[in-house]
Amino acid sequence: MTASYRPQITNASRPATFTVPAVDEHGEAAPHSIAAENPLTLYVDKREVVTLMTLGCAPEALAIGYLRNQRLVKSIEDIVAVQVDWETEACAVTTRSGIEDLDGKLEKRTVTTGCGQGTVFGDLMEEIDQVRLPADAVLDEDTYFALMDRIRVHDTIYKAAGAVHGCALAKGPEILYFVEDVGRHNAVDAIAGKMWLDHVEGRDKIFYTTGRLTSEMVIKCAQMEIPFLVSRSGLTQMGYEIAKKVGLTMIGRAAGKHYLLFTGHQRFLRREPVAAAGTP
Amino acid sequence: MTASYRPQITNASRPATFTVPAVDEHGEAAPHSIAAENPLTLYVDKREVVTLMTLGCAPEALAIGYLRNQRLVKSIEDIVAVQVDWETEACAVTTRSGIEDLDGKLEKRTVTTGCGQGTVFGDLMEEIDQVRLPADAVLDEDTYFALMDRIRVHDTIYKAAGAVHGCALAKGPEILYFVEDVGRHNAVDAIAGKMWLDHVEGRDKIFYTTGRLTSEMVIKCAQMEIPFLVSRSGLTQMGYEIAKKVGLTMIGRAAGKHYLLFTGHQRFLRREPVAAAGTP
Repeated sequence: MTASYRPQITNASRPATFTVPAVDEHGEAAPHSIAAENPLTLYVDKREVVTLMTLGCAPEALAIGYLRNQRLVKSIEDIVAVQVDWETEACAVTTRSGIEDLDGKLEKRTVTTGCGQGTVFGDLMEEIDQVRLPADAVLDEDTYFALMDRIRVHDTIYKAAGAVHGCALAKGPEILYFVEDVGRHNAVDAIAGKMWLDHVEGRDKIFYTTGRLTSEMVIKCAQMEIPFLVSRSGLTQMGYEIAKKVGLTMIGRAAGKHYLLFTGHQRFLRREPVAAAGTP
Repeated sequence: MTASYRPQITNASRPATFTVPAVDEHGEAAPHSIAAENPLTLYVDKREVVTLMTLGCAPEALAIGYLRNQRLVKSIEDIVAVQVDWETEACAVTTRSGIEDLDGKLEKRTVTTGCGQGTVFGDLMEEIDQVRLPADAVLDEDTYFALMDRIRVHDTIYKAAGAVHGCALAKGPEILYFVEDVGRHNAVDAIAGKMWLDHVEGRDKIFYTTGRLTSEMVIKCAQMEIPFLVSRSGLTQMGYEIAKKVGLTMIGRAAGKHYLLFTGHQRFLRREPVAAAGTP
């Protein structure tokens, strides 16, 4: 197995938007662009695992990232093939040697949720205790603002149709991936899948999300060993507490030149204050 | 059993917001109010069912509504007691005569999700075919705008801390319930629980949500037999298709005087156009 290993995958993305008729407050026809939402049932070695509701832009990466973030598969090398067939709304994942105790893991999943009501297996919080984020990674304010500018002008489905959440993985000011989906967690998972497919590490990256910084979002970021998490939105108590515990550098309410730095201050380098005119 | 039946319930709401330290773009301390997020594990007759991440403002109603919307319990009369204990982060539900085939139902749950990755049992779409929404319910534009005004000025956790979704149940312009939670589905479920507790029917009501109109949101509204669904946000393809199929009156992008009426036009009475000055 080499560092360039890549499973056999289809490339079955779906149209992201549709136009539906609507009538506005003036009684006039106002056709409206809306986001797609497709059920995709994930089978691992022919065993049904989950049905995800997805925009469908990156279904193979979503499937891989889901298995990664739910800790069902340990490395990309364990995955032989990922085949998406929209006719049957199915994604068939073939593993190299099966998943140990899949039934037990699936049963565990039923009792823990997030996102309001998401799906995460039980032991994540314990695992979080073992996460060590890189102490030497830094992000300076100029780089941060340059990245925010690129994200702002990025062409998105959200601008066309709303009703989706976006996530980006960046290195410095450069956006490596930008994924949108009807569910926050799907967008994160698809990025996790792309990272595995391309053998991209998290340790020198920045994760951006339009969504709220809840416990699950922070846990997933930490699991991917990404030291920086930035959101346009706010945060919740558990999101804050977990970020503090693992020492994640977390920025919320990022909009234009405004931001709030909540945790992990030591990795964020603020611009030196400009000396006032006239002072030496 | 009477129409005023009410199970024994605790009243264990939690503080909704906390203040955490933050530093803003000027390098200044900017303490920030954030939404609470508490794990609450639901036990039905001592069997562990799910862990919900919740704001914690209406945990008993959330538990009841979850069991209702997941079709685990058929009526409020089946529930004897709901006891929330935050010390143990547990909610114990006692039923009158147990839940038939609970294991089978829980297993089914593992394979279908929504909200990106939520939790819904398998047969909801089939059930949707049997929903008959009231044909004679109407909502006139003046009532609609009066309700939107009340929602706009309603005191919310969102205004203080963001990172939550709100849902309201209204009769005409009057807000009957307003619930916020870190998850969209929790807020809907808590309203479903309150409706059962107070023996409130859905057939002459309006459901408002700050969240997106995805498949699960539309399904839950239809299951509660509520003919009107209004959102500040946009919608997804499956949300649209299901609303069209069941004939729900669905309004999206509701902001100020603007709205888009997508489906179920026949129940929405637009104001008569005002005759132009000078015409008879």
